[in-house]
Amino acid sequence: MTRRDTKSLICEVARELFNLQGTANVSTNHVALELDMSPGNLYYHFRNKEAILDRLLAQYLGELKPYTNSNALESDIEDAWFFIHMTSELATRYRFIYRDTDYILGKYPPAAQAVSLALTSLLEAITRLLTGLDKNGALQLPSDQAHRDLAMNMLIVCTQWIRFRRHLAGKAQVDVEAEDLNAGVYQTLSIVMPYLEPSQRQHLENLRGQYT
Amino acid sequence: MTRRDTKSLICEVARELFNLQGTANVSTNHVALELDMSPGNLYYHFRNKEAILDRLLAQYLGELKPYTNSNALESDIEDAWFFIHMTSELATRYRFIYRDTDYILGKYPPAAQAVSLALTSLLEAITRLLTGLDKNGALQLPSDQAHRDLAMNMLIVCTQWIRFRRHLAGKAQVDVEAEDLNAGVYQTLSIVMPYLEPSQRQHLENLRGQYT
Repeated sequence: MTRRDTKSLICEVARELFNLQGTANVSTNHVALELDMSPGNLYYHFRNKEAILDRLLAQYLGELKPYTNSNALESDIEDAWFFIHMTSELATRYRFIYRDTDYILGKYPPAAQAVSLALTSLLEAITRLLTGLDKNGALQLPSDQAHRDLAMNMLIVCTQWIRFRRHLAGKAQVDVEAEDLNAGVYQTLSIVMPYLEPSQRQHLENLRGQYT
Repeated sequence: MTRRDTKSLICEVARELFNLQGTANVSTNHVALELDMSPGNLYYHFRNKEAILDRLLAQYLGELKPYTNSNALESDIEDAWFFIHMTSELATRYRFIYRDTDYILGKYPPAAQAVSLALTSLLEAITRLLTGLDKNGALQLPSDQAHRDLAMNMLIVCTQWIRFRRHLAGKAQVDVEAEDLNAGVYQTLSIVMPYLEPSQRQHLENLRGQYT
């Protein structure tokens, strides 16, 4: 296995452990143990947990970029469903970032820039998505203020949904099912419901029935 | 000082430390140190951190009850502003609960019931608030489904706002200003904006200008 492969494998296992057990509860020794690797060998690739976090944040930003950087303007609610679904699925794969944010920022301040960049680029992409739908007549935005409020509310709901749904049910978050994800996509899009053109509104209801 | 006073004082100091430093980073020894009290003396009142958490959760639920149990149906957007403001202010005073939820539920599973109870009673109260506004003609809800979606989105935004706003700015949450709170109240109410009767919509805009 090349050095690059080993680095990727370490990150993969760390990501899963952070997701399942919480970033605070996972040390580099846990990661090494899970990989059946000596702590010294892991140290050769990453000098500490921060270095792993650093790479995982860069990796998340890299995977997010094709969605947030796209120049294509979404034209109907199905495109919007797809966009929210893809970015939510990605956020779910890296859910430790949105769940353990306070721990990460508290222990490792340089992460703040990556977290802020992820959120602001998502906010901009959602804003562009709304502009696209508006331009194409799929919805009607009453004002620029409503535009900003909508995008912000959609971002809060789509990044906090998984975590929130568990808390409401009185569970510590451990796993995520496809059902949670789809319910979150619908919940996020329900925010634009009143602004949708009637046939688009019906289409959103149909998508909901199909996926949740 | 009576025993009861001392217990209350310990909880008060623990609540502030949990809010400022994160529940995970505060031990009973930190609380004792802050109070200039011996760990043994603190132990006489609370046998561990869980016992303090337990009391703080009960205290939060007790303070929340007058708002969530009220039988008065809100009649206009100003009543709604007041309700969201009061419950958000309370959630801000106990913000470690909504911020460190995963840590608390992971380390202390019995807390799950209290957290779930807080969220479900808030969800029911917001649902009732919407019903009241609808009954009084302040807004018009198109369907029961919209009713449920709205209440859920409002709950997510009002409980996650403070935390989210810091992350978007790339900051670990440390303090909260009145401005954050008022912006959160507006952001929460912006979700019902399209359903509001025009004069109520104008009134919400005025309240926003007044407070943010």
